[in-house]
Amino acid sequence: MNPTITAFERSPDRGRGLARDMRVRWALEEVGQSYDVRHLSFAAMKEPAHLALHPFGQIPTYEDGGLALFETGAIVFHIAQQHAGLLPRDANARARAVMWMFAALNTVEPPIVERAMAIVVERGEPWFEQRLPLLDNNARKRLSELSRRLGDAEWLDGDFSAGDLMMANVLLRANAMGLLADYSNLAAYLSRNEARPAYRRAFAAQLAVFTAGQAND
Amino acid sequence: MNPTITAFERSPDRGRGLARDMRVRWALEEVGQSYDVRHLSFAAMKEPAHLALHPFGQIPTYEDGGLALFETGAIVFHIAQQHAGLLPRDANARARAVMWMFAALNTVEPPIVERAMAIVVERGEPWFEQRLPLLDNNARKRLSELSRRLGDAEWLDGDFSAGDLMMANVLLRANAMGLLADYSNLAAYLSRNEARPAYRRAFAAQLAVFTAGQAND
Repeated sequence: MNPTITAFERSPDRGRGLARDMRVRWALEEVGQSYDVRHLSFAAMKEPAHLALHPFGQIPTYEDGGLALFETGAIVFHIAQQHAGLLPRDANARARAVMWMFAALNTVEPPIVERAMAIVVERGEPWFEQRLPLLDNNARKRLSELSRRLGDAEWLDGDFSAGDLMMANVLLRANAMGLLADYSNLAAYLSRNEARPAYRRAFAAQLAVFTAGQAND
Repeated sequence: MNPTITAFERSPDRGRGLARDMRVRWALEEVGQSYDVRHLSFAAMKEPAHLALHPFGQIPTYEDGGLALFETGAIVFHIAQQHAGLLPRDANARARAVMWMFAALNTVEPPIVERAMAIVVERGEPWFEQRLPLLDNNARKRLSELSRRLGDAEWLDGDFSAGDLMMANVLLRANAMGLLADYSNLAAYLSRNEARPAYRRAFAAQLAVFTAGQAND
């Protein structure tokens, strides 16, 4: 039995890989685990059946036998524990890879999502233009710090890990807003992640869902 | 040898337990692990010595033998793996406890911190009052969803876990802004967490640092 994940029936990012099912698809591709996808409309995401799986009414979820998870950090970590390839064997290196997962989700992502959401929700507000530099500064502060730490390294800590997977997906959103232009090492790091065969398979799979939805219009 | 954590020399929260070292102190108290604390000024947090430990220039960090970590999620998870008491033994229950750690840090905390930061940074801006309802709505949306999921349960999933520890610390900040008044089950849940002996020891320890700093003025 394959695990089953949920994803948008019609992703608001138009198949650019920004929806969070991309993280889980990529992790599953890295470890060579096939999976099934259940597609949800926005309405279905707020219905009791889905809220029982995901109390915050989002995608993705992950179901495998008796286990049901939400939160991409937890799902990717679970996949990484079940299969080799996403976390180092050495205990200290493994703790640091988990550290980068949390850093991606709790330190780097929030100001990037805050800027992206303001563009969607507050673009028409009278303060939008005036506030934008503040949002830029918050996002760029974290990107600068990350750029300085990464330096010329290929990955965040030793070999590619689930920490890189999470960070790259967060940087994808920053890049979609043009924020990586000043950080050539982060742009190159993102490209290295995007060049991985598992990334490309995952990207193609989520894009195919969007393209099929378009064709049905 | 005790592990060493870093904390503010003078916490901007004035000892209310909102600084993130509280999470790590609490976890260490839950498992009965004594620890040493190195206190840092704001200036020291931006110096190369600390940035080598923590690329984002924050507290806390955690050092134990050859391992150095930042990110409270990663530190608490590491402590929970080294000692019994913070994560269930059953693999599926353990995955769900980790899920609640990520949910606290990546889903519930961001809108709460966003509101708290706006109060600090944007209070003097002409748009502050107009924007506040939007910030309130974002925070309350997550709190409503969490409240609905928690229901009458004592803890988020079975016994107390590192997931509750993280969520309670996030709710502490919401409560400090008065946001739990409409969610009596979340307020009671926070109180249950605060009543734990380990929480009280951790809270007293961080408060003592602030009080000692005051006495030295």
